[in-house]
Amino acid sequence: MLTLTTFRSVPEFAIGYVRDLRVRWALEEAGLPYTVRAIEFQEAATPAYRKEQPFSQIPLLQDDGLTLFESGAILLHLGERSPHHNSPLLPEDADERARVTMWMFAAMNSVEPYLANLVNLVVFCADEPWAVGARPPAQAMADKRVRDLDDWLDGREWLAGSFSAADILMTTVLRLLDKMAMVERYPNVAAYRERCMARPAFKKALAEQVAHFRQLPAAA
Amino acid sequence: MLTLTTFRSVPEFAIGYVRDLRVRWALEEAGLPYTVRAIEFQEAATPAYRKEQPFSQIPLLQDDGLTLFESGAILLHLGERSPHHNSPLLPEDADERARVTMWMFAAMNSVEPYLANLVNLVVFCADEPWAVGARPPAQAMADKRVRDLDDWLDGREWLAGSFSAADILMTTVLRLLDKMAMVERYPNVAAYRERCMARPAFKKALAEQVAHFRQLPAAA
Repeated sequence: MLTLTTFRSVPEFAIGYVRDLRVRWALEEAGLPYTVRAIEFQEAATPAYRKEQPFSQIPLLQDDGLTLFESGAILLHLGERSPHHNSPLLPEDADERARVTMWMFAAMNSVEPYLANLVNLVVFCADEPWAVGARPPAQAMADKRVRDLDDWLDGREWLAGSFSAADILMTTVLRLLDKMAMVERYPNVAAYRERCMARPAFKKALAEQVAHFRQLPAAA
Repeated sequence: MLTLTTFRSVPEFAIGYVRDLRVRWALEEAGLPYTVRAIEFQEAATPAYRKEQPFSQIPLLQDDGLTLFESGAILLHLGERSPHHNSPLLPEDADERARVTMWMFAAMNSVEPYLANLVNLVVFCADEPWAVGARPPAQAMADKRVRDLDDWLDGREWLAGSFSAADILMTTVLRLLDKMAMVERYPNVAAYRERCMARPAFKKALAEQVAHFRQLPAAA
């Protein structure tokens, strides 16, 4: 029995971008049924929730007696528990699998922090006077990482061999930039992002996240 | 045959903190012999190196035909290839192993980016006028994550069950703060950091990194 924990409600701008999307997408790719447990935003800060998720974040996945946080670790777990012939998340060969986990960590550690830092400055700190000065170096670092990725994707369809859990993570990382005209400057990255988002499992996961958050009026 | 790639030379302040330490430490814990391949700083930007490491970084580990970057993925690979009775890197039980990988991703995605962002502002951008304004929110985020970790470590010796690869990553993440009087404010985190650094494998790995970089005069 798989249970995905997410928030009951998020601000309008976040709908379609909440990190439970990574897990929903992976579950759809692997054909694994799941139920959703919705928590209030305030509940994430309670001692009871922080015993499961010490950083007060979502998503959380419960798989019988196992409770996991960190979307990277959740996708790795889903890849390991789903049969290879039914699921594209992780390859069967040990070396190919190591290359996929390498790109999973790369998405989470070598790309996401730099894109998130830039978006934080441009979108969430736009009114702060210091953000004007902080932006050029943050922009340069984010551009460097997306350019490096663009070079890597030259002549490649996916990050490591076939489509995998690494592509799920990287696509959601690149979508952090959706409010900025940036990915468009990197043709291999832009085409890769579209290729990933064209997958039926992505579309279904996105539609289900949007439907979940539209059940209630958006949070302020 | 395991070959670890690192730089030939780094600036004085970086000696003892270069990320190859994570891999050296893991190799010592697992009792795996390895050789070191040293590259010049400029070499990391060449097309040939970027075919192995698209982001021009170290460390890189070669294991026969497999070349891996991302220290998280390298440690996962080393844990999977070393027998459990000889190596503490990963537990044998699947659920326990999932909890260790969860904390490996947490170190790399939920903690390191916030500590690295703060250190970047305080140490490397200290002379930039905008860094004064950028520092309070960065300090608050870094403090929140270290405080969350401090709560998690209350009554726990290691992050997830026994000592594991997750503790190697988290210790090196916490050492990013060594130039700041910050970890000292969090007693569980401070004691945990000392406990990890007291391990013979850490001491040997640190000594070998320092010896490596002392072979040549430090880079400017």
